[in-house]
Amino acid sequence: MTLDEKVAQLVGYWLDQNGEVVAPLADEMGSGDGRSLSDITRHGIGHFTRVYGTRPVDPAARAAWLVAEQRRLVRETRLGIPALVHEECLTGLAAWKAATFPTPLAWGASFDPEIVEEMAIAIGDSMRELGVHQGLAPVLDVIRDPRWGRVDECISEDPYLVGTVGTAYVRGLQSAGIDATLKHFLGYSASQSGRNHAPVHAGPREIADVFLPPFEMALRDGGARSVMNSYTEIDGVPVASSPELLTELLRGELGFEGVVVADYFAVAFLEKTHQIAADRGEAAALALEAGIDVELPTGDAYLEPLVAKVRAGEVPEAFVDRAVLRVLAQKEELGLLDPGAFDADAPATIDLDTPRHRDIARRLAEESVVLLSNDGVLPIAPATRIAVIGPNADRDEALQGCYSFANHVLANHPGTPVEVDMPTVREALAESFDVAYARGCDVEGDDRSGFDEAVAAAASAEVAVVVVGDQAGLFGRGTVGEGNDAESLDLPGVQRELVEAVAATGTPVVMVLLTGRPYALDWALAGGGPAAVVQAFFPGEEGGTALARILAGSVVPSGRLPVSLPRSAGSQPFSYLHAPLAGPSGVTSTDSTPVRPFGFGLSYASFAYSDFSCEAGDSIVARVTVTNTSGVAGAEIVQLYGHDVAASVTRPVAQLLGYARVPLAAGESRTVTLDVPASRFAFSDRRMRRVVEAGEAEVWIGTDAATEATDRATITLADRVVTANDRRVVGVSLTEVGASAR
Amino acid sequence: MTLDEKVAQLVGYWLDQNGEVVAPLADEMGSGDGRSLSDITRHGIGHFTRVYGTRPVDPAARAAWLVAEQRRLVRETRLGIPALVHEECLTGLAAWKAATFPTPLAWGASFDPEIVEEMAIAIGDSMRELGVHQGLAPVLDVIRDPRWGRVDECISEDPYLVGTVGTAYVRGLQSAGIDATLKHFLGYSASQSGRNHAPVHAGPREIADVFLPPFEMALRDGGARSVMNSYTEIDGVPVASSPELLTELLRGELGFEGVVVADYFAVAFLEKTHQIAADRGEAAALALEAGIDVELPTGDAYLEPLVAKVRAGEVPEAFVDRAVLRVLAQKEELGLLDPGAFDADAPATIDLDTPRHRDIARRLAEESVVLLSNDGVLPIAPATRIAVIGPNADRDEALQGCYSFANHVLANHPGTPVEVDMPTVREALAESFDVAYARGCDVEGDDRSGFDEAVAAAASAEVAVVVVGDQAGLFGRGTVGEGNDAESLDLPGVQRELVEAVAATGTPVVMVLLTGRPYALDWALAGGGPAAVVQAFFPGEEGGTALARILAGSVVPSGRLPVSLPRSAGSQPFSYLHAPLAGPSGVTSTDSTPVRPFGFGLSYASFAYSDFSCEAGDSIVARVTVTNTSGVAGAEIVQLYGHDVAASVTRPVAQLLGYARVPLAAGESRTVTLDVPASRFAFSDRRMRRVVEAGEAEVWIGTDAATEATDRATITLADRVVTANDRRVVGVSLTEVGASAR
Repeated sequence: MTLDEKVAQLVGYWLDQNGEVVAPLADEMGSGDGRSLSDITRHGIGHFTRVYGTRPVDPAARAAWLVAEQRRLVRETRLGIPALVHEECLTGLAAWKAATFPTPLAWGASFDPEIVEEMAIAIGDSMRELGVHQGLAPVLDVIRDPRWGRVDECISEDPYLVGTVGTAYVRGLQSAGIDATLKHFLGYSASQSGRNHAPVHAGPREIADVFLPPFEMALRDGGARSVMNSYTEIDGVPVASSPELLTELLRGELGFEGVVVADYFAVAFLEKTHQIAADRGEAAALALEAGIDVELPTGDAYLEPLVAKVRAGEVPEAFVDRAVLRVLAQKEELGLLDPGAFDADAPATIDLDTPRHRDIARRLAEESVVLLSNDGVLPIAPATRIAVIGPNADRDEALQGCYSFANHVLANHPGTPVEVDMPTVREALAESFDVAYARGCDVEGDDRSGFDEAVAAAASAEVAVVVVGDQAGLFGRGTVGEGNDAESLDLPGVQRELVEAVAATGTPVVMVLLTGRPYALDWALAGGGPAAVVQAFFPGEEGGTALARILAGSVVPSGRLPVSLPRSAGSQPFSYLHAPLAGPSGVTSTDSTPVRPFGFGLSYASFAYSDFSCEAGDSIVARVTVTNTSGVAGAEIVQLYGHDVAASVTRPVAQLLGYARVPLAAGESRTVTLDVPASRFAFSDRRMRRVVEAGEAEVWIGTDAATEATDRATITLADRVVTANDRRVVGVSLTEVGASAR
Repeated sequence: MTLDEKVAQLVGYWLDQNGEVVAPLADEMGSGDGRSLSDITRHGIGHFTRVYGTRPVDPAARAAWLVAEQRRLVRETRLGIPALVHEECLTGLAAWKAATFPTPLAWGASFDPEIVEEMAIAIGDSMRELGVHQGLAPVLDVIRDPRWGRVDECISEDPYLVGTVGTAYVRGLQSAGIDATLKHFLGYSASQSGRNHAPVHAGPREIADVFLPPFEMALRDGGARSVMNSYTEIDGVPVASSPELLTELLRGELGFEGVVVADYFAVAFLEKTHQIAADRGEAAALALEAGIDVELPTGDAYLEPLVAKVRAGEVPEAFVDRAVLRVLAQKEELGLLDPGAFDADAPATIDLDTPRHRDIARRLAEESVVLLSNDGVLPIAPATRIAVIGPNADRDEALQGCYSFANHVLANHPGTPVEVDMPTVREALAESFDVAYARGCDVEGDDRSGFDEAVAAAASAEVAVVVVGDQAGLFGRGTVGEGNDAESLDLPGVQRELVEAVAATGTPVVMVLLTGRPYALDWALAGGGPAAVVQAFFPGEEGGTALARILAGSVVPSGRLPVSLPRSAGSQPFSYLHAPLAGPSGVTSTDSTPVRPFGFGLSYASFAYSDFSCEAGDSIVARVTVTNTSGVAGAEIVQLYGHDVAASVTRPVAQLLGYARVPLAAGESRTVTLDVPASRFAFSDRRMRRVVEAGEAEVWIGTDAATEATDRATITLADRVVTANDRRVVGVSLTEVGASAR
């Protein structure tokens, strides 16, 4: 291979990009230079960037074009290497007419990795049908600050929940033949004051013990084939320039053998935003040597600037070769290099939103809704007259996250319909109830002119369902999502005022939140306000239907908060997973205690725990009997927490050790066994070895991170050094113990 | 020495402590056990803890008692070793009837190390007179988050300003024969979300490049003889248990040979709050081996629990010996072991607030007041009828910081007068103006019943001076100070409403802030509100007088903000000293830009810069001519900033390289030469070596960190590895260039 042919394999080409901002600073980073595609790819090309996900294109027509284009690459370039095609696929394939699933916070709220795996298989099947090879998901960043707009793309503030759910996604996507990409390696979510791309202040222990585990699980248990770098710096070192993280840790310690791709423009950002490189060539050298194999979305730095550096002898060509070999190995593994790989034509018709997609989307949405309060108004009896109010009550965009095609791409194409059936909350409720509707206000802004109509609608109804929350979008368009960080954690705009105005009518208010981050809701949960509060994290195309079924009682809510419900922006950052002194203490007058803790969620059923026991050895085997003490079926999320009583470094006051989603018929009891590897208690000791230290630990069942449902059992841990191969995932088994008396 | 005699030298005894909360969790940590002092000290004693600073005692009487007690120790204990007596002395000796100086933020605002040194000499002289040997000051924590209540004890958010001003304090105190104690080694001020004692999330580079330099300067340039540990953990490791920080870094790298004392209860807190020790004995072992020589305030862990550990062979006695030798060396150096050290009686009368003290206090207060806005209402013309309004207008406590005797100790003794002349703003203004007064509201709470009276007073005045701000105190008593962290950075209580109600009268409002932290004042500075805003950081006993002189124009304001004036709590943490991506960027919709930048301050005079030049070699020699272009004398703070254009790690967009306070008569010009060691550009590189990297840098004169007063000069830096002995302090010279035309 010539040097030009090599670097061509290390870059993407962004076909349809015309300066629309669907990536950070995309408007400033330039787009096509007017050359023809065959000229641009004359030496070959590594990736095609977002062939389906940049603007609305008909999937079948584009699939046919893509097959032809791959054949052309094979035919016309000297080496005949096809392009690897990557797309965004976090909440479903981000392509026109494709299914939109619930957002990652909703996956976390479901505490159900199995259904997330099912979803990812369906996503992967759609991608394969279109000739896509790699998906830029999942996001495994552990939430540290809800002010950050990309919390909308994250699963949870608990690393183990992120790891188990994220690994299920990887397993699902890859079982459909699509390479998953773990984002964002490493530490992105701890950006200063929740500002996107801002410096991360964290030491090596926090990196190893909080941010790393989900990646480790998704690599080891999920076999993820690609990793994307984090945009941020950690303690002064931009990750895109860190051989310690991208090579020594990722490949040396974790044994990763796949391809590291750059987050969009991250190579050039070493010069442009981090300012640690004097020019693009230096940026390219830093990134390539650190271990970024492929520059995305295009070859801003890895084409001419890198070639010049190599030709000048300033970058050893061996680094180029290292990356090329990885890219070619990936293409080979994907079958791209097989003879006849593109012999088959694309399907003539393609359905990216089949009944199977919709069924999964609905079930996941139903499992992910969190009931935060309920004075008895829920479920709403049949034939109740309902006023449906609020800016998120009747907009399909309000059901979708930032990486949905609608909010990510279609927002740049006003007038183009989403072309996916997406019943709003209003529409779904109207299926079963007599519904009046008033918008009341917008998500943003201070226009209160619709309040009167909303109040009137509520006054003549028996129940008012007020649907408020976020609009997901990018870089200043919307209230949450990439680049939409928050200075305040109050609900945007005048939405709180709308809820309060409606509640003042005396009509019981069910406040439904469709958001991409947790908001400060003390005012709504302290009593005297809404009669019930229902939290949905952008629940996707079947989210309106799922919410209507939950409000009507045909589905019993079973989601649990995957994040703490914050007190305020001024109490951030905060995580439930904290050492004693980050919690309430006698040494500060200021309480950061969240309004509702991680793991919290109510049900229409009720549950009781009994017979908790725990045996500790190499594994910690915890058993508990959980009983549905109510007259309705429901699912309980059994949560096992632990606390290392005295370790050589500070340890969290409570740590989720394992969990199980347990469906229980009315009156039913089951014994849940959680078989927890002792390595779940591991941490980085004073010498940065990952160890379990001998000594006492406490374990208990909690209904959430702050509420103990059983006594604490004291167990004894033995000293052990934990290796990368130690089992980290909790084994769960459920045993029927027969219906017990209610 | 027996083991008992050794450990006795390693602990303090807190004579008068009876459970009053003047230290964290003091109420839970127990107090005396009923034994007599001679029994308690039968093996000797290391320190007497706050003999003067725990409750109001008559200084002369207590000094006489102390001499007698020292003689008794010499006479009655087997080894005859006297006690080292330590006191708090941050804003003056914290003892009854002693002078109260401005708080450290005011020192920072003065940009005048010389007067801080003068102040420290006066403080030290008072302490020596009383038989005190060691002062627990200065606080060298670099401000990182204004939510933290102890910001009230800190100098600045700039490490160099902290280092130069703090070193001046050390030099002054020690030149009076009192050992200074550097607090808090290391990293305390970065506690999570500004919560006192909460975990510090920081990597080794931030520790080395931001938190360490002030300590390094105070040790190397100031020769500080004692260091106190930080309460916090950094990345999981409580500093009190860190041999890496307290021994390897502090002694090995920095060459410190003095005594490390524990912050109060910090040894026991390894068990009680950090929970990394199973009991007090383990806590003692961790702290002693890490390098804490003396446990303060008492021997909770270093007496029986440590002795048991040593006797059991679990702690090598060599660690005890190491600490004892350091304590004895300190006592010897202080002259405590000299024959006849206590032959002299204490003075019969002692004046701790002499005219010299008051003169320094007034001059420092005058230099520290920052004029934030002024539409021309200031200075106030003679004979103007003034309404003086606000909760801080007529209270002497409002002039004093958290470590003043009044707010730290006397608050526990209601009814005991402060016994120091301390004219309030109201009293001082009444000296020159016709003054009406209305309190309006309290600092805290929502009582608006005084608004009407305040509005009426304003309506019949020509100018309304509204004095608002903080009440300093401890652990929930007050709005700022140790343990009084903030969830919001709005002014406490209804004070903003008071200002707005008064401003609504149409009478021009001068808002004067007496605070211990910077608050979010956008509403007051955006125009349409107060006609002028004056920021004083608790300016001490002469602060009322100084403010009155500034408002009347007999003193021209010259203070500059030592901290950014924050946008909001939700934009924290923020520091002016930040890498590019912590500032405004195209990748976040949320702007953390402060309302007024570090270094900002107005004057009644005006200044112009010309002839800026810069030569770079081993030193960077910057020259600029500054001219007072107004008709009144004033002082300008000349600020030299720099930016390393492309380094191997991210570097601040602007960094204060040096500064000079330059008094200028009306029309006068001076050439200011700042001789900056190139090591001011040093940082920790990828291998954690402290280096200056070859390449371009920019330097300029700024009127503040965000406003350039000259063009940027580009200089070329040469590669160098910086050692602990490299010069870090900027040389300043001022040359008269004759009066220039206005």
